[in-house]
Amino acid sequence: MIIDCHGHYTTEPKPFMDFRKAQITAYEAGKPMPDFPEILDDEIAESVAANQLKALKDRGADMTIFSPRASGMGHHIGDEAVSKTWTRHSNDMIHRVTQLFPDNFIGVCQLPQNPEAPIANAIEELERCVDLGFVGCNLNPDPSGGMWTGVPLTDRAWYPFFEKMVELDVPAMVHVSGSCNPNFHMTGAHYINADTTAFMQFLQGDLFSDFPHLRLIIPHGGGAVPYHWGRYRGLADMMGKPPLREHVMRNVYFDTCVYHQPGIDCLFKVIDIDNILFASEMFGAVKGVDPETGHNFDDTKRYIDALDISDTDRAKVFEGNARRVYPRLDKALKARGK
Amino acid sequence: MIIDCHGHYTTEPKPFMDFRKAQITAYEAGKPMPDFPEILDDEIAESVAANQLKALKDRGADMTIFSPRASGMGHHIGDEAVSKTWTRHSNDMIHRVTQLFPDNFIGVCQLPQNPEAPIANAIEELERCVDLGFVGCNLNPDPSGGMWTGVPLTDRAWYPFFEKMVELDVPAMVHVSGSCNPNFHMTGAHYINADTTAFMQFLQGDLFSDFPHLRLIIPHGGGAVPYHWGRYRGLADMMGKPPLREHVMRNVYFDTCVYHQPGIDCLFKVIDIDNILFASEMFGAVKGVDPETGHNFDDTKRYIDALDISDTDRAKVFEGNARRVYPRLDKALKARGK
Repeated sequence: MIIDCHGHYTTEPKPFMDFRKAQITAYEAGKPMPDFPEILDDEIAESVAANQLKALKDRGADMTIFSPRASGMGHHIGDEAVSKTWTRHSNDMIHRVTQLFPDNFIGVCQLPQNPEAPIANAIEELERCVDLGFVGCNLNPDPSGGMWTGVPLTDRAWYPFFEKMVELDVPAMVHVSGSCNPNFHMTGAHYINADTTAFMQFLQGDLFSDFPHLRLIIPHGGGAVPYHWGRYRGLADMMGKPPLREHVMRNVYFDTCVYHQPGIDCLFKVIDIDNILFASEMFGAVKGVDPETGHNFDDTKRYIDALDISDTDRAKVFEGNARRVYPRLDKALKARGK
Repeated sequence: MIIDCHGHYTTEPKPFMDFRKAQITAYEAGKPMPDFPEILDDEIAESVAANQLKALKDRGADMTIFSPRASGMGHHIGDEAVSKTWTRHSNDMIHRVTQLFPDNFIGVCQLPQNPEAPIANAIEELERCVDLGFVGCNLNPDPSGGMWTGVPLTDRAWYPFFEKMVELDVPAMVHVSGSCNPNFHMTGAHYINADTTAFMQFLQGDLFSDFPHLRLIIPHGGGAVPYHWGRYRGLADMMGKPPLREHVMRNVYFDTCVYHQPGIDCLFKVIDIDNILFASEMFGAVKGVDPETGHNFDDTKRYIDALDISDTDRAKVFEGNARRVYPRLDKALKARGK
């Protein structure tokens, strides 16, 4: 089967987005929070069936590891209470999608992060979501939204959360949200910079000696890292670190959200096949049709199909690696005889 | 001939570095600035002859476009007066190198930027350096040193400087300096992020409609951009911008500071040959020998030599493009019959 490890619910029903707007307005005005609106199963089913589910099937994939809209997480908007309420509702929406289409969607949760709140406060929501059947989470390395006021992921401040991830055996995708820094365009700079930054933090630090079972996915093909793989190998060497394969790549995975063939070629050339997970981020940053190919930029399966790799390797990227990195996904699939 | 468009003076004589330390100490203590030490021509010649010049010749190149150590610019350290003094001395050192080895080094200057100072204040030093024979400058898009407190390069605040660049017919390499943000490792994250960020700012904005003759080099192979070329083409399309070739790539060039063959392959696959300038950043971020090849990571000429491209294209990358992007270099070479 073919599993897309990186999909966001970016076609949410209007009342859901209206709630968010009302929530922010109320927060800014110091007024009571709005009630969450009634949203019918039909509305949710419709919002997905004609969009992500249709594209998934059209493109020949089977399942998406599905999470709330990344830009919508907005951990820098409002206070921790705002983030908690919004996160809970966002995750509940994902849960409902996975209940409506259990064969095609499985959940990854947003976390109630906030620049002022310790990450330990996000543990409760992670546990709640795992109980609901979620198989991982999206961890924002910069809850300040492009201001980068927090500490690197290797700082001990993050450790309570990593301990819980290991205990629950769930991975995290390292994924920022919106940018309120005018220097950083969200999907064109902030996302890619965050990916590159996270990898370099792992290289600089020694996180995986403390957490040998921690698993982190760096999206968007690992930011700039595969393109500059020689730089990172050289920096590790200069800093007296073990080779990247031992030092970082036992715990870190890159997805395939790279929207053209030469980029995917570079990714597969330098990164071990066991560290690459199929993904499209459909529907995410880039929604159009590439005039050079006549196909959607984010139809990344086509680029992988075009690679000269063995069937065994292809199966790893499309399915095996995801089942290994997300053991709860593997368990859920096995329970269904898959 | 073979021109390396990106080299820094990272082997400065000790008294020069001692001066900088003393300058910072004095600033922090509120004491008078130290005097600049006497540094003999022999000391300068020796510091270069055994290092950059030797490597240049060993590797088969002829000339380096040479600028002060990028990490040393430190625009965020001290106030504008500190930056001005330090910049002037740094550029004078480059000038002395170019006078000692006129056939092998030509200057690109540092600018006396500071987060609190308008960029127009840097014009005087640019003019002084151009009078001395410098052919371009290094422009820091984030003088706050990783805090990104300034405005995008497309903001009108930068325009007075761009006007002067066009008037003097000199390009700028967009190059950050050190990072005081613990999230961003300097050469592993801040440099690459800044490259990606600058490109996306150009994509988002419309700078080159206002400055059709402005020329900017994005170093380190354009950051993450060539690897994510599909993403950027798609984003331009989504934002209703003209194709990148028209919108950005008439004015923006990438260097070849990508330290492994697959990265260079990707760069040459997606970026027009007219937009690629040979460079090694020797000696810069990565100084060791790649155990996979037995050669220095930053011996980038080897990767270009290995490409299956025509002699005409190779000549563009090694020489022609640099002479076109730095017209004052071309003039200086012609004056010497080259």
